[in-house]
Amino acid sequence: MRRTRFDTWDCPVARTVDILGDWWTPMVIRSALLGVRRFEDFTEGLGIPRNVLTERLNRLVDEGIMTKVEYQDRPVRHEYRLTAKGVGLYDVVVSLLEWGNAWLEWGDDGPPVELVDRATGEPVEPVLVDRRTGVELDPRSTRAVYRRGENAGRPLMGAVQERSR
Amino acid sequence: MRRTRFDTWDCPVARTVDILGDWWTPMVIRSALLGVRRFEDFTEGLGIPRNVLTERLNRLVDEGIMTKVEYQDRPVRHEYRLTAKGVGLYDVVVSLLEWGNAWLEWGDDGPPVELVDRATGEPVEPVLVDRRTGVELDPRSTRAVYRRGENAGRPLMGAVQERSR
Repeated sequence: MRRTRFDTWDCPVARTVDILGDWWTPMVIRSALLGVRRFEDFTEGLGIPRNVLTERLNRLVDEGIMTKVEYQDRPVRHEYRLTAKGVGLYDVVVSLLEWGNAWLEWGDDGPPVELVDRATGEPVEPVLVDRRTGVELDPRSTRAVYRRGENAGRPLMGAVQERSR
Repeated sequence: MRRTRFDTWDCPVARTVDILGDWWTPMVIRSALLGVRRFEDFTEGLGIPRNVLTERLNRLVDEGIMTKVEYQDRPVRHEYRLTAKGVGLYDVVVSLLEWGNAWLEWGDDGPPVELVDRATGEPVEPVLVDRRTGVELDPRSTRAVYRRGENAGRPLMGAVQERSR
């Protein structure tokens, strides 16, 4: 069954999910954020089938999230590096990690992985705040609204049907 | 083709992606965070096929992310509410929204949707900081490390192969 694409929806969440919703893609980006760059290291680290990895990397390059760079010329070898747009997905991946640690069941020893400060080695506590005020953001303090058109300033009520293209 | 499951991997990102990686699921959660609760309102707002929505809602209930509540008894009617675990996905969805707004192409008028402060109506600027210090988090300032076992304190280098179960 052909799945519904979200890439023409007039919603930033939908359009982002259209890219990241491909199975394996968030795991590829997670590995890239951990420093993996070479095809063999992705396959080895993740156990991802080679044809799937090729397809995912190609799309990430097409989307401007990764760039394919020649790092050796005899023989020719390429690696995949995150662009600034790709590094921008750090917040998404950290949010996935933090939610998983906080809410999934890990047994008595707790979760196996944590995020620490590189300088001090101390665990960090990621939290989403408003840069202007430093106040923690939550669903009660914020609202998603339309920015333009006849509904400008009005809250979204779940609809994303107004396709822009 | 049966896809690889991530739910037994020893990685919080993988286990979270196993749940949220189902096509449509992030859109269902996004709608729920916007206040949608009734089956018909999900189908109307998203245009999601009814059988797919049923399957996704059932899994979200199984995972403890949503709860099915009777809100009327003649005739019996149910609605789906996010639990605290579900509301915890706010950071993930906001990160997806912010990345989409910042990095995807929206034309001259900019993105159609933004997040505002409920009290003031002013746009918020979501940013991930360390709660202890208020310092903004990025891939250069943090590192993911193993919390326990023989590799405790050592950085992950892309591998998630050590399955715990």
